[in-house]
Amino acid sequence: MKGSLLYEGKAKRVYHTTDNSDRLILAYKDDATAFNGKKKDEFTGKGRLNNLITSKVFEYLHQQNITTHFIEALNDKEQLVNQTTIIPLEVVVRNKAAGSITRRLGIQEKTSFIPPIIELFYKKDELDDPLINDIHAYYLTDITEQELTFIKQQALAINEHLKNLFRSAGLELIDFKLEFGRLPDGTIVLSDEISPDTCRLWDIETGKKMDKDVFREDIGSLIDTYEMILQRLEENVCAK
Amino acid sequence: MKGSLLYEGKAKRVYHTTDNSDRLILAYKDDATAFNGKKKDEFTGKGRLNNLITSKVFEYLHQQNITTHFIEALNDKEQLVNQTTIIPLEVVVRNKAAGSITRRLGIQEKTSFIPPIIELFYKKDELDDPLINDIHAYYLTDITEQELTFIKQQALAINEHLKNLFRSAGLELIDFKLEFGRLPDGTIVLSDEISPDTCRLWDIETGKKMDKDVFREDIGSLIDTYEMILQRLEENVCAK
Repeated sequence: MKGSLLYEGKAKRVYHTTDNSDRLILAYKDDATAFNGKKKDEFTGKGRLNNLITSKVFEYLHQQNITTHFIEALNDKEQLVNQTTIIPLEVVVRNKAAGSITRRLGIQEKTSFIPPIIELFYKKDELDDPLINDIHAYYLTDITEQELTFIKQQALAINEHLKNLFRSAGLELIDFKLEFGRLPDGTIVLSDEISPDTCRLWDIETGKKMDKDVFREDIGSLIDTYEMILQRLEENVCAK
Repeated sequence: MKGSLLYEGKAKRVYHTTDNSDRLILAYKDDATAFNGKKKDEFTGKGRLNNLITSKVFEYLHQQNITTHFIEALNDKEQLVNQTTIIPLEVVVRNKAAGSITRRLGIQEKTSFIPPIIELFYKKDELDDPLINDIHAYYLTDITEQELTFIKQQALAINEHLKNLFRSAGLELIDFKLEFGRLPDGTIVLSDEISPDTCRLWDIETGKKMDKDVFREDIGSLIDTYEMILQRLEENVCAK
């Protein structure tokens, strides 16, 4: 079923499938990177955890009528998805200030954003994924104004769903990053992954950081943290 | 008539007037700074040139029904303006790629932007005036969505007027920076200055840079360049 390697990213390998040219297999790697690849390490078991967490989250979003590229988890480290052409934008939604925005705009950590702040970053490693505005996005990508409005509406709707999902697992959703892609017919759907690599999640009781910041800031065990996220999602989220 | 010093910026001193508390005097300095103050020098005569050029430009904009803070030039180095509370945004309009955007987004110099790109930067020296998006502007300043729409419309209208003005002086308007302020009644008007310090102007015939880039890049005499801009504006622009 798994065909040739199409692309290798920092966190995943992407393979063709032999039986359906519109479907791909994502194989999650054990690598962790931060600060645009400047900090790197490998954690046995991380690929499995991000695959299973992302699968859980995308299944939940399907129940909430959000369309995504996700089809199903195939095994511990791999998932089947519909092929999309990724739009080179990182769409970040922030409910509270943390990470880069605190340094960039001098906003104190934990400041609440109601309504949430949406930011666009241009996915381009050589440029360190710079922040851009809507007009830049029209020049740098093929999206139209109408499509960008749709993407932002989706991002806000996904934010509400994810806040509920993680709250039921005792976690506060501080911010997260989404990527969108186009199906062969041009339709834009949520793609990539949603995991503690792409979300900031703080324990509601203790305020403890339970996401990739434990790796960025060397403040705990990445595997223990991600394992706990998966467990909490499995215990607290109603299965389909 | 000139009262006490209210504020000293990098390029201008701002004074109260003794006879009308709603009016201020801007005194243009001979200092030149670039790269957020990292490069500095002083050019005798620069204050006069920027005062006279800005006065000429604002008078032209008044003829085109753009409302500004400007009242009149008082002498070679000073102008009378209506007091405004500056909104801490730099509004940049780009007709062609030059300067920071080429490095930031990897866009080749001289690439045309039709329609123009509008960028917002948060005026904050300690943060190096970071690029922001509209939602950031709502959190960082007191402007409303409706007011930001007005500011962008004004910026685009001003762009068309300035392109015409500078074209008549043999200059292509590549990009420029505007600042807006609020009059005591809350109305938003164009403020600050419009000069070769705040515009990129390329000679239409030769393509030569005729603006602060001659200082930034050490490629010519700042005073000779600014003097030529003033002369060309005086020769080619119909007086009121």
